[in-house]
Amino acid sequence: MTNPTAAMLVIGDEILSGRTREANAYHLAGRLGKLGIDLREIRVVPDDHDVIVDALNALRAAHTHVFTSGGIGPTHDDITADAVADAFGVGIDVRDDARALLQAAVGHTRTLTPEHLRMARIPHGAELIDNPLSGAPGISIGNVHVMAGVPAIFVAMLDAVLPSLESGRPVLSRELRFEVGEGRIAAPLRDLAAEMPDLSIGSYPFHSGSVYGTNIVVRGTDADRIDQAIERLEAIRRSHG
Amino acid sequence: MTNPTAAMLVIGDEILSGRTREANAYHLAGRLGKLGIDLREIRVVPDDHDVIVDALNALRAAHTHVFTSGGIGPTHDDITADAVADAFGVGIDVRDDARALLQAAVGHTRTLTPEHLRMARIPHGAELIDNPLSGAPGISIGNVHVMAGVPAIFVAMLDAVLPSLESGRPVLSRELRFEVGEGRIAAPLRDLAAEMPDLSIGSYPFHSGSVYGTNIVVRGTDADRIDQAIERLEAIRRSHG
Repeated sequence: MTNPTAAMLVIGDEILSGRTREANAYHLAGRLGKLGIDLREIRVVPDDHDVIVDALNALRAAHTHVFTSGGIGPTHDDITADAVADAFGVGIDVRDDARALLQAAVGHTRTLTPEHLRMARIPHGAELIDNPLSGAPGISIGNVHVMAGVPAIFVAMLDAVLPSLESGRPVLSRELRFEVGEGRIAAPLRDLAAEMPDLSIGSYPFHSGSVYGTNIVVRGTDADRIDQAIERLEAIRRSHG
Repeated sequence: MTNPTAAMLVIGDEILSGRTREANAYHLAGRLGKLGIDLREIRVVPDDHDVIVDALNALRAAHTHVFTSGGIGPTHDDITADAVADAFGVGIDVRDDARALLQAAVGHTRTLTPEHLRMARIPHGAELIDNPLSGAPGISIGNVHVMAGVPAIFVAMLDAVLPSLESGRPVLSRELRFEVGEGRIAAPLRDLAAEMPDLSIGSYPFHSGSVYGTNIVVRGTDADRIDQAIERLEAIRRSHG
């Protein structure tokens, strides 16, 4: 497949400490697959400036698109925007259009606090990502898209970003359930995978009650080829049932 | 903190494609925190030999302990053991003790298939990790611990591995709920974080019904210091309630 590739960078001590279960990667993975963007890596890092800068630079050099989540709020542990500016070697300042979005979100009768203004600091040369829920914008700069960690806001920002991105041929998949352990079908599966290298054939064991079974997932960009593979798998299932 | 550090490497196309929601990182993070092992990175990579080798070598050089999940079954897409052998520059072969574990798991009247034997291939110099559920062992080599992706087996293997590892001072945490948005308390929080740099003070906004609130999490290894921080936070809450 020659689809564009992507990486996700999750920024947040709360994931690594075990306090919070990461909730955005699964959503992103599903959305990217439908667009034919090949998610190749997810990396979770702590709220550590240098670690974030290094990870951003490694991932943006290696992939067509990079999506980040977390660390764009008003508190001392929200350091993503500064790390993004450093990774790109640009300055960062409060910007009028971002300030206007925050003013609109809090209402025109309230004065913006220094904490509001912290969320209006934008790396030079970035574009804003609309945040319909709480006002504080995300940031797109180069091939990096910086979004909130709060799941509802992450989803809304992703909706705003994805339509403009370079996409590819959507990845299609079909799945077939076998009521035998994967060891029993490993040999014909290996042969099928070797014969159809344009497809990805994954084998996922499951255990449900007293049944040890296997789900076989066929993924690719050509629906006819996937159908051919499923027919072959159905034949394997009849002979190894 | 001078606690030992750790990284997790999740190996599996099924996570990156959006088919499967990753389920082991949250468990690992919680267990390591209780042992005083500082989880510093989680990385998810596809079933790609070279990518796995590179990630293993980067993570094992940077951290005290590395835990992997996924890719140790009998099928063609289970390539973790070979990648581990290559990362360490050692050979890999079927080993008698691993073969005996698989023989015991399938019962002594059945003949092991080539697929069973694939799960008995062990990098030279590795130790086995007991798998009480399905027999096929995990692998410990150097500072890398290679475990199954199936959550019940991952948990069982982790139980077997953790007691022998270098640990540190357990990380304790307390949490305080504020019924105001985090912007309202960001300034005193920043001051408190600067004053108590031995603690990690995280701010996590939440939205529940009509309430925009903030959970403040204080983490550290000294219970008295955490209690002092919580007292200070309670005072902040009284004046910003």
